[in-house]
Amino acid sequence: MSNTSKWSSVNAPTPYEIARAGDRIAPHIHRTPVLETRALVVGGTIELKLENTQATGSFKVRGAFNTLLSSDVPKAGVVAASGGNHGAAVAYAARALGHKATIFVPEMAGPSKIALIQDTGADLHVVSGAYVEALAAAKRFEADTGAMQIHAYDAPGTVAGQGTLMREWEAQYLASDTVLIAVGGGGLIGGALAWLEGRRNVVAVEPDLAPTLHAAMAAGAPVDVEVGGIAANALGARKIGQICFDLAHDQQIETVTVPDAAISEAQNLLWRTCRQWVEPAGATALAALISGAYTPSPGESVAVLVCGANPAPGPFD
Amino acid sequence: MSNTSKWSSVNAPTPYEIARAGDRIAPHIHRTPVLETRALVVGGTIELKLENTQATGSFKVRGAFNTLLSSDVPKAGVVAASGGNHGAAVAYAARALGHKATIFVPEMAGPSKIALIQDTGADLHVVSGAYVEALAAAKRFEADTGAMQIHAYDAPGTVAGQGTLMREWEAQYLASDTVLIAVGGGGLIGGALAWLEGRRNVVAVEPDLAPTLHAAMAAGAPVDVEVGGIAANALGARKIGQICFDLAHDQQIETVTVPDAAISEAQNLLWRTCRQWVEPAGATALAALISGAYTPSPGESVAVLVCGANPAPGPFD
Repeated sequence: MSNTSKWSSVNAPTPYEIARAGDRIAPHIHRTPVLETRALVVGGTIELKLENTQATGSFKVRGAFNTLLSSDVPKAGVVAASGGNHGAAVAYAARALGHKATIFVPEMAGPSKIALIQDTGADLHVVSGAYVEALAAAKRFEADTGAMQIHAYDAPGTVAGQGTLMREWEAQYLASDTVLIAVGGGGLIGGALAWLEGRRNVVAVEPDLAPTLHAAMAAGAPVDVEVGGIAANALGARKIGQICFDLAHDQQIETVTVPDAAISEAQNLLWRTCRQWVEPAGATALAALISGAYTPSPGESVAVLVCGANPAPGPFD
Repeated sequence: MSNTSKWSSVNAPTPYEIARAGDRIAPHIHRTPVLETRALVVGGTIELKLENTQATGSFKVRGAFNTLLSSDVPKAGVVAASGGNHGAAVAYAARALGHKATIFVPEMAGPSKIALIQDTGADLHVVSGAYVEALAAAKRFEADTGAMQIHAYDAPGTVAGQGTLMREWEAQYLASDTVLIAVGGGGLIGGALAWLEGRRNVVAVEPDLAPTLHAAMAAGAPVDVEVGGIAANALGARKIGQICFDLAHDQQIETVTVPDAAISEAQNLLWRTCRQWVEPAGATALAALISGAYTPSPGESVAVLVCGANPAPGPFD
């Protein structure tokens, strides 16, 4: 395994760094299961990686644990701004490792995701407005206290942590030619691209209403986009992370977008066929298949990453 | 592998028959995933078999496919009486294999489980009253039309089909000393005992309010019991099946019972730790651990079978 990346992103983790991250976080996370089913699409078997079963209900704990376990965490602990899943992951990982956590959440995250963070015992601040206001508050807190900021997607330690998912999936004998992955800020797909180094076909799937990577690929650089729709609180980054963009651009991956109606239908289908209840972001990759936004070639096998649960309200809210 | 059972139940399937059943049904069912987690019980790793992800949301399709695939199905098709999961499984398997299915459901099954059966396109009859009335109607239909009756738990083909679950789990490297399994009529645990032939510790878990096997073990024979509580529409058989009883009695397995409150808490815990939303019956085995009804010895490792999803109402009802 090479110790340097063959792709040009300066900050992208190498496969070696992702492998080290995987060993580092293994005692703290779920090795999430894989399910093969013929019930999702007529005529084909689909491999599903059920990362929705991960601790805190999303892949975000991978990056959070990796960052905390490879850093000198100051006495003031860690701080994060988050629409939900990243905040819950940072708070959960901090508690597991005995650090203080302070999380700034925008009101728009909604009561379910706010409760998810509250359950970890973190010091939680609900900020009126959207993500940018929460981020500004987190930055002020960082400057005032010296707490360590953990970025949700565009930091090497975060991307290396998220990259452990694809490493784990390959160790579980992932067989498909093509993997569909939902994209928000690009931490998850960035980690996957850094791990795979081009040896599998990766398709980026975004909501029509939050086409952050799609717009960047068209523009040739990360650009600000308007974001909205039903998956916005998880996939609603306004600008793709640079690490992800560099990898996606160098590898010239395909990006597709899907309407919110297809995302809802995919949520429903995941429940009907295998009783997995996920939030819109968790069903977005599958939506590309059922909407026809991505049509496999004859004989092409396809895997779908189900990246997050945490529907709001959840069953016990 | 022996072609005769070393246990005395006349109708119990042999391991050889279970292995054949497993090969027979494999193209039609999910090989359900396994998740290891440290989050359920302080200080220990628990292996969970997520059979709630099975087609139709429960293990019942295993027995249904095995019975249909090893029988000459008459032109009148199949008939079943069911409080929900068995009926859905028979209807699903019949449709997949091109047979007619007629299902009699007691009103008490509730709208979610009735809708589950409706979705399969089966000919559905909702019978006022409880399971016994539905069973009587199904028997009349069988006599009138010559349709084939599929028993929910006390038939060799059904038990062999359910036994494929434990065979599959062992092939997935089940490591634990002890396996906790919820019991209704005894098809699932009967299949497990027939497969295992005493080489693992199996603990039967029933609701306090539906202690069908527990009462039979105390009496030395199957006896009628009053059944009720939150898991009654799945675990509410009034009398344990003879095949199961013979195996449980011969192997002298331990039986424990749990209060409904512990079942609810286990449902909640499965959601919080790994985002699996299951019906009360699906959480009953886990309830034995969290209520202390079963306390592992120091060093004893424990696995929990999560046997069914299908909460009512479900997320999309």
